[in-house]
Amino acid sequence: MQIERQPVIILVRPQMGENIGAAARAMLNFGLTEMRIVDPRDGWPNPKAVAMASGAAGRVLDTARIYPTLAEAMEGIDYAYATTARGRELTKPVFTPATAMAQARAHQGRSAIIFGPERTGLENDDIARANAIVTVPVNPDFPSLNLAQAVLLMGYEYGRDILPPEPAPHLRRSEAESPADRIEIERLGDHYDEQLTQAGFFFPETKAASMRLNMRNMWSRLTLTKGDVRILHGVLRQLTRR
Amino acid sequence: MQIERQPVIILVRPQMGENIGAAARAMLNFGLTEMRIVDPRDGWPNPKAVAMASGAAGRVLDTARIYPTLAEAMEGIDYAYATTARGRELTKPVFTPATAMAQARAHQGRSAIIFGPERTGLENDDIARANAIVTVPVNPDFPSLNLAQAVLLMGYEYGRDILPPEPAPHLRRSEAESPADRIEIERLGDHYDEQLTQAGFFFPETKAASMRLNMRNMWSRLTLTKGDVRILHGVLRQLTRR
Repeated sequence: MQIERQPVIILVRPQMGENIGAAARAMLNFGLTEMRIVDPRDGWPNPKAVAMASGAAGRVLDTARIYPTLAEAMEGIDYAYATTARGRELTKPVFTPATAMAQARAHQGRSAIIFGPERTGLENDDIARANAIVTVPVNPDFPSLNLAQAVLLMGYEYGRDILPPEPAPHLRRSEAESPADRIEIERLGDHYDEQLTQAGFFFPETKAASMRLNMRNMWSRLTLTKGDVRILHGVLRQLTRR
Repeated sequence: MQIERQPVIILVRPQMGENIGAAARAMLNFGLTEMRIVDPRDGWPNPKAVAMASGAAGRVLDTARIYPTLAEAMEGIDYAYATTARGRELTKPVFTPATAMAQARAHQGRSAIIFGPERTGLENDDIARANAIVTVPVNPDFPSLNLAQAVLLMGYEYGRDILPPEPAPHLRRSEAESPADRIEIERLGDHYDEQLTQAGFFFPETKAASMRLNMRNMWSRLTLTKGDVRILHGVLRQLTRR
């Protein structure tokens, strides 16, 4: 992920230091490191923010830029998204995080995601300075995202298709983890067939042939590894030792 | 979103009531209401959880089901995802939340997402009971998701593309051909565990725990049908009858 193109996180008039620190931790989960703060209620630096951030997230706070107004905080920004949960009277495009972050990844320039004060959210005056609104699709009966959670979701969505791609289900496999081959499956089937015949499992005689066939088919159908086959041989040997 | 098919959120041995309450709030943002709790450290009900949940999320706690073990908490579950950040030695498919939740939306049956204790995460014994692992792709230099945030991301991802699931082109399967659910897998594992213990299979003592774990994980990993499970129970009964 190109550091210079990642979206800037802008917190507008945040109230509690703990929330600023939590937001720093939240964004860093997804490699976002650039925070700007507009007119924080309790000034700056804020020891409660530092205490909450801790570790590498403390550096996010150290390098955060502080501005008196949102207008000034927009320096170097080409495209800004205002996050808001409530409907607004302003005529403005509204996007989901998925769409907005896909756009942000594709933009040539620099994007910013703007978050409002914890209790009241962004004012119309703030939103008017953004290009578009982003609204996280939430349960209308219980919209309770806090500031750090909103930052988290935007960071997650931004990194969703660029952070380490889905790990392949099997990286370098051990021999035991590789699939059993047909001969191994055949021998497993033979072993169970012999021992279960002796144990009287295929009973009554009228059903014996189809029971054997079903069992043989089962071994083939299961995605047994070489390790599994060895375990299943061992199980049978142990149970038939007496 | 069909209420009866939404994934169940399972918290395994959660420690702090505040985190349980926060998890209830987090999931309800995305309309998830079914929580199960395994062996909560501080018992149940938990006033700190209630205080944190508040409002409608309090009802999530009221209807949460409490279980002594993860095995029992899997009742009615067909497919389970274990969330974990760390690599594991078990052979298990690993998915991103995006893929896992797309699967969960498409499943015919009921899915569960399993979260571990806050400090230590899930044990191998827990993970062995899931079908697959889900790992949130995070900054490897700063993975700091807390319990509620992990629940939030999974809930968000589940609801992310809310479209009516594609009706599966689905032949009417016989009951025997349908996948065994988690409880059936658990009981099969128990049966083999008991009988093989009596037969002295888990030997030497130093390897017994990992042999049991690997076998438990094997039953979870194989795509056993209900018919397969019955056959495997029958095989074991027949062999241990004398």
